[in-house]
Amino acid sequence: MVKSRGRERLVVIGGDAAGMSAASQARRLKGPGELEIVAFERGTFSSFSACGIPYWVGGDVTERDRLIARTPEEHRARDIDLRMRTEITEIDVAKGRVRARDVVSGDESWTPYDKLVIATGARPLRPPLPGVDAPGVHGVQTLDDGQALLDTLTATEGRRAVVVGAGYIGVEMAEALIRRGYEVTVVNRGQEPMATLDPDMGRLVHEAMEGMGIGMVNGAEVTEVLTGDDGRVRAVATADAEYPADVVVLGIGVRPETTLAERAGLPLGESGGLLTDLAMRVRGHGNIWAGGDCVEVLDLVSGRERHIPLGTHANKHGQIIGTNVGGGYATFPGVVGTAVSKVCELEIARTGLREKDALRAGLRFETVTIESTSRAGYYPGATPMTVKMLAERRTGRLLGVQIVGREGAGKRVDIAAVALTAGMTVERMTTLDLGYAPPFSPVWDPVLVAARKAAGAVRRGGA
Amino acid sequence: MVKSRGRERLVVIGGDAAGMSAASQARRLKGPGELEIVAFERGTFSSFSACGIPYWVGGDVTERDRLIARTPEEHRARDIDLRMRTEITEIDVAKGRVRARDVVSGDESWTPYDKLVIATGARPLRPPLPGVDAPGVHGVQTLDDGQALLDTLTATEGRRAVVVGAGYIGVEMAEALIRRGYEVTVVNRGQEPMATLDPDMGRLVHEAMEGMGIGMVNGAEVTEVLTGDDGRVRAVATADAEYPADVVVLGIGVRPETTLAERAGLPLGESGGLLTDLAMRVRGHGNIWAGGDCVEVLDLVSGRERHIPLGTHANKHGQIIGTNVGGGYATFPGVVGTAVSKVCELEIARTGLREKDALRAGLRFETVTIESTSRAGYYPGATPMTVKMLAERRTGRLLGVQIVGREGAGKRVDIAAVALTAGMTVERMTTLDLGYAPPFSPVWDPVLVAARKAAGAVRRGGA
Repeated sequence: MVKSRGRERLVVIGGDAAGMSAASQARRLKGPGELEIVAFERGTFSSFSACGIPYWVGGDVTERDRLIARTPEEHRARDIDLRMRTEITEIDVAKGRVRARDVVSGDESWTPYDKLVIATGARPLRPPLPGVDAPGVHGVQTLDDGQALLDTLTATEGRRAVVVGAGYIGVEMAEALIRRGYEVTVVNRGQEPMATLDPDMGRLVHEAMEGMGIGMVNGAEVTEVLTGDDGRVRAVATADAEYPADVVVLGIGVRPETTLAERAGLPLGESGGLLTDLAMRVRGHGNIWAGGDCVEVLDLVSGRERHIPLGTHANKHGQIIGTNVGGGYATFPGVVGTAVSKVCELEIARTGLREKDALRAGLRFETVTIESTSRAGYYPGATPMTVKMLAERRTGRLLGVQIVGREGAGKRVDIAAVALTAGMTVERMTTLDLGYAPPFSPVWDPVLVAARKAAGAVRRGGA
Repeated sequence: MVKSRGRERLVVIGGDAAGMSAASQARRLKGPGELEIVAFERGTFSSFSACGIPYWVGGDVTERDRLIARTPEEHRARDIDLRMRTEITEIDVAKGRVRARDVVSGDESWTPYDKLVIATGARPLRPPLPGVDAPGVHGVQTLDDGQALLDTLTATEGRRAVVVGAGYIGVEMAEALIRRGYEVTVVNRGQEPMATLDPDMGRLVHEAMEGMGIGMVNGAEVTEVLTGDDGRVRAVATADAEYPADVVVLGIGVRPETTLAERAGLPLGESGGLLTDLAMRVRGHGNIWAGGDCVEVLDLVSGRERHIPLGTHANKHGQIIGTNVGGGYATFPGVVGTAVSKVCELEIARTGLREKDALRAGLRFETVTIESTSRAGYYPGATPMTVKMLAERRTGRLLGVQIVGREGAGKRVDIAAVALTAGMTVERMTTLDLGYAPPFSPVWDPVLVAARKAAGAVRRGGA
């Protein structure tokens, strides 16, 4: 593949959120006469919402294609040469080229680039357990994974499901399988579900999930996937017990997919994610950008780099990379670690540091937990909500918030996310002018109640 | 009434949110041996939620007493000498005393104070129209007002209601009367309902209310309340038309109730509200505090003082005053002008400056409006939402946000409220780490979509 003269070529590795947002934004800023854009995607879908898979499996979303933001054809209609089922097998930084392999034919060829965007995403952890590849054991990272799981659910007579892992994907898949009529058991290595929360808040999730009829097994490591005579999964074994299963869903997290980048000698952080500057340029490489689930991002609260695979970050990265590639200027200042999820009616949210993050960062802090309600207590539909708040000693700076509640609880975390971004103190937060009316909030919003208590703790706090 | 030696006396005028929060907080910090607290309330209820009245009238709240946060007996049990049905008729600043009149007996007496809290609230506007005092015409500021209206609704056979005014109280009462089965017409002097929004956003409220079957008459001034042979209201007249009415609700706003303060020579602002320092002390008076609906507050966005009667501010003022009176230290930095409301399924929110506020403050700004949805587009229950955003030219500082949508729209204004408090730019807002999951938000939260568009307008903007 030879470049035509007089225009630059942008090569994008990865046809999902970060890569295709970057390509689209670059195209908005530079026409095909100035910039050629070639994108490579190993899989069969482009620009899909992986976050939506649990709701498709659960039946809330009825058509797979609703999860596709933009098809390959739509990208091509925008003068982006998107090549599907084409895997990049090598990045040759010295020569400025990538080697692509047609997944179907096996043909390989080199494509030179002037600018490169690495958006290779993350790969799901799949522990090397006996039986883990048996039919009936599913990951849920791609639309193909989702379809395979749905096919299993449709084909099997079974009614028992085991979900391995109790993070966001695990609890969302538990909901999906409950909605499909399954008896669901979640087997979780941690002390409580939702390890992104402190265990005391995870405990609330645990109790609520049990209240929904979901079996929660905590502190249990899966040792083997047991299969029946037909070779299909029949149970999941831990050191202590066996949990019968007609279907098993693996939701134990992901790692940055940076095999190519590592081989190319690009800089990786502790998690294995690519390290970039604020403009999302790979450090030390002026013409290579990276974004989405394959990079580490700066945590603005702890000052450390972290791997936080989330579609909302991937989209922002893509937008910023595309702007920079297209000759504009944009930066990604970092994250504060906000996440929100739900399990049936339960809403779970967090932002900033947990206690163990704050300790690891060497911070001293006060911790408070309060109970309040989503609406004025007298207003119909007011539901209880627990808010935990961490504030730094002496400075009173907000460090983190965790919320577990029902309708109206989750998105309240945004208040704390913005306050964290602004470096606000909990004392200042006590007088935040938040929206109040009885259908929306008690006269003191739950976040304000927590801030008042945290401010008191800081005032009384030690050195 | 003579003070006992050796302890101070705090006198509180007004037994509602600001006054009784102040009294309660002062009591928490100082016991009865140190501080005597005497509070005077003209009415028959203490510490009630005026904001809850529309939901009581509408039937969402079934018992009046649910709106009472704390009864006079509960206050007295906390060693607060709360005297109900007792009106203060004079503040004698020079001698440090107030004159109280028993509303029932008419007896008057002086009570000396060491410290005084003025929490006299606001009085509803009641235009001096012919017929405005006829039976069937109701205000909705106190629980007695609410009860009287409910009595009218129960007693009359009528099915037609006219609401005068289309601000928060007007639209909330329109919902309440619709829920009671009335045909409702809202007669509004302004160009569109919700004058706290710009007219283009008010237009969306207008259309939604008509869609709910509420008659909206805009740009119409009521000239007379017409009565029938029985002396009861029968219609509301404007210059152009008559609107038949079995019941009329006045919701045309309030003014600070500062008659006493004015006579005592205390400093008032343009709106007639008391002027205080950041510790809520009346300016120039070291031992007099004021809070709640009778004061002006600093608008942190425009830098001007404004009158914003809202229960959430009143509660904060009371808390701060009580802390200061009790020997602690707390300040109220000001407001950003956040408000949220709903009419049936419609949610309406605003914070910061409208276009006309920004013009009045001498600011140049960019204005953008975007459409988005409350959840990922593919997730069930995703509803459309319109977000308008104002940003200052050159600096890009966020100036204001208005939101009209359905479930999940209103409280998103808190994101902007915190950003305004922090003086954040719209460019910085584009990368805010807000909670994302398909049931909670599109991958770009609507507020982020607006921020991106606003940031683009600022970049392209003129001088």
